Amino acid sequence: MTIPHVVIIGGGFGGLSAARTLKSAPVRITLVDRTNHHLFQPLLYQVAMAGLSPADIAAPIRSVLHKQKNVTVLLAEAVGVDFVNNTVQLADGQLSYDYLILATGGRTSYFGNDQWEQFAPGLKDLDDAVEIRRRVLLAFEAAEKESNPERRQQLLTFVVVGGGPTGVELAGAIAELSHFVLARDFRNVNPKEARVILLEGGPRILPSFTDDLSDSATKQLNQLGVNVRVNTRVTNIDERGAHLGEQLIQAATVIWGAGVQATAFATKLGVPHDRAGRVTLEPDLTLPNHKNVFAIGDMTSFTHQEGKPLPGVSPVAMQMGRTAARNVLHALKGEPYEQFKYTDKGSMATIGRHAAIAEMGKLHLSGFPAWLAWLFVHLIFLIGFRNRVAALFNWAWSYFTYQRGSRLITGRRLSLLPRRVMRAQVGLEEEPQPNEKSEFSVR
Amino acid sequence: MTIPHVVIIGGGFGGLSAARTLKSAPVRITLVDRTNHHLFQPLLYQVAMAGLSPADIAAPIRSVLHKQKNVTVLLAEAVGVDFVNNTVQLADGQLSYDYLILATGGRTSYFGNDQWEQFAPGLKDLDDAVEIRRRVLLAFEAAEKESNPERRQQLLTFVVVGGGPTGVELAGAIAELSHFVLARDFRNVNPKEARVILLEGGPRILPSFTDDLSDSATKQLNQLGVNVRVNTRVTNIDERGAHLGEQLIQAATVIWGAGVQATAFATKLGVPHDRAGRVTLEPDLTLPNHKNVFAIGDMTSFTHQEGKPLPGVSPVAMQMGRTAARNVLHALKGEPYEQFKYTDKGSMATIGRHAAIAEMGKLHLSGFPAWLAWLFVHLIFLIGFRNRVAALFNWAWSYFTYQRGSRLITGRRLSLLPRRVMRAQVGLEEEPQPNEKSEFSVR
Repeated sequence: MTIPHVVIIGGGFGGLSAARTLKSAPVRITLVDRTNHHLFQPLLYQVAMAGLSPADIAAPIRSVLHKQKNVTVLLAEAVGVDFVNNTVQLADGQLSYDYLILATGGRTSYFGNDQWEQFAPGLKDLDDAVEIRRRVLLAFEAAEKESNPERRQQLLTFVVVGGGPTGVELAGAIAELSHFVLARDFRNVNPKEARVILLEGGPRILPSFTDDLSDSATKQLNQLGVNVRVNTRVTNIDERGAHLGEQLIQAATVIWGAGVQATAFATKLGVPHDRAGRVTLEPDLTLPNHKNVFAIGDMTSFTHQEGKPLPGVSPVAMQMGRTAARNVLHALKGEPYEQFKYTDKGSMATIGRHAAIAEMGKLHLSGFPAWLAWLFVHLIFLIGFRNRVAALFNWAWSYFTYQRGSRLITGRRLSLLPRRVMRAQVGLEEEPQPNEKSEFSVR
Repeated sequence: MTIPHVVIIGGGFGGLSAARTLKSAPVRITLVDRTNHHLFQPLLYQVAMAGLSPADIAAPIRSVLHKQKNVTVLLAEAVGVDFVNNTVQLADGQLSYDYLILATGGRTSYFGNDQWEQFAPGLKDLDDAVEIRRRVLLAFEAAEKESNPERRQQLLTFVVVGGGPTGVELAGAIAELSHFVLARDFRNVNPKEARVILLEGGPRILPSFTDDLSDSATKQLNQLGVNVRVNTRVTNIDERGAHLGEQLIQAATVIWGAGVQATAFATKLGVPHDRAGRVTLEPDLTLPNHKNVFAIGDMTSFTHQEGKPLPGVSPVAMQMGRTAARNVLHALKGEPYEQFKYTDKGSMATIGRHAAIAEMGKLHLSGFPAWLAWLFVHLIFLIGFRNRVAALFNWAWSYFTYQRGSRLITGRRLSLLPRRVMRAQVGLEEEPQPNEKSEFSVR
């Protein structure tokens, strides 16, 4: 008798939960991911804002699972599934499975305006975070050399599109970074001149929270100096900034925090999915007509419980992962599948130093208590003891000294900002020499 | 009366020392660097080997100097100097100076074989380190999937070219990484199969040390499992590996630790330089015929003291920086310049865990005592308290747990290794399907 083979695609919160639930099961597991690390996405914005290092919030999947002897980890890209022959196609080979758990997560969606990506990066992985860190820090460096006040204003204007948790975190963090951290390090520019503008299309930010918490978040953002504009739709983004119909907000840095869709892998599976590419599920988390194939997390749309899809947050993915894994165990024992039921333990969003909101049933917290709760929960769940200690240290360091240790501009791309924007000139001469042809360049 | 303007090009050990020596001087200083961070290069190999994070060994130059109010830091690339008009040309502007201190450092030299760079990266900056980390970790990942024994051997063969301190550090660190750290995380590949080969053209490694220490280093490398080959010249490097005349060492990963030359900036200054582009100096560190222009560190060739150029190490750069800065002060007071005199306080090279050599005058240390001395000196001199604590923590963590927290493969390039090498196939099927067309791909 051969040992049943469970293939899990994706090493995020959902995939890891599924693998761990099968720890003592009589199966062999192959976990496939296209990166070598599990990423603690809720803290990704901290990397983008130079508060934490990439290694603080990521752990090699091999390390996370190295004690679980029934798992093989494979660095590979899954490109499709042959449901008839029970085979996963990889970019460089294939894997046959007895049970398949799909957990490929989400990616940034520009709602059909993919040409905006070059001007307004999203925040989904470590490369995104390092790229945003680079753009924000370089904008300050360029402003330090800029003598033209209008161009300097443009360099010091940061637009964040999208008033969900990611946008709110980013906007708050940019405001903090510029007003507290960078303030003392520049000579010619006062980083307090920096403007941070948060744009939200709907009537309020953080719409998944209650009205009172949403209001509180806006107040806390305002206190940090963030300009929050609701009912404001972006019509175009280019090298000059963000367009709101006729109006243009001139900004060298625009960050996209607005939309999430399922990975391209999910969309191309050939199974029913919604407009955001999220596959539709049976109540037991299987794909329709495929009783040995489960899908979990951000790549799915699970509407059976509340009528609307469950939110794309890690608790949903982890609970789904456990249910899918338990259903594999049920199948092995010839038992009927259980249906998925999400238990909402509350949600929180951080805004900045001492600033957050938290909603746990009827308990609504704002400000410092919410921030402490947020910090506690996120440090506890950060996977890997070493990451937890390292992150806590780096955090405490930033907190007490107002320094950011990870303020590194790396990468060899010559210029981060559209060249037309960046025609800067050095303003240090006693009699500045106009030099319109020169271009800012960073190696 | 205007305040004299001192321009320093380069924020490495030399440039920072010069700036700090002028702390209380009645001058205004502009420090220009093309990166935003000071890099503690002696620990760069630790980043390449996933032991430390980039942020552990780099500090924003602005932060390092933020208390020194007479310094302005500028992120910009210097492209030339107009000695007649006392002006530095930047890629995007210019700076006039009264005194100029050049400290642009070194870069990797392939001795005229620049086409080798794509196959054998050098190790000079953070991007290099992250690239080497990526290649080494990806080679193990690809080996995990490789069923052909010959290809697997090629993937697990690591060639380091050059038996100087950098090459020795890298070879020792790869051996450690594969034999101790990665060993338990792989299922199909035994990382102990990894071969590490160190190639040195001369008769012994670490030729700047005495014979006995050089021998000791070879023995310590052998104990770590490194194959050391002296009197061995590389004639070509391509996607298959390193060629030694007719012989080919098949290796997916080749790292270049052999040569250093001055930056292109130094070579193009239009002043006398040696074959490695290092500018020749007067005994007082000025350029010939330019009494207000000093050059220091790895971009220079200072032969007045020992007949041969001083080594390209940080103590030389730092001592030169201090002398150049003091000569600026002498000039301001109308005093004669002092001549540079290097005080050699000894040198050390690390090989691995508990393995190092140190030479301090007549005191020669090997093994554990040398390693402790090396660790102590390097942690003490690591700039910035936060970096020191963070690095110590990460180090202790790696040391006691044999884990490496920074084992992240990042960057969006599709395939790191030459595609011809990487035609791998997944070897997990019970009956592997030959699939010669597929190519390994990493996102």
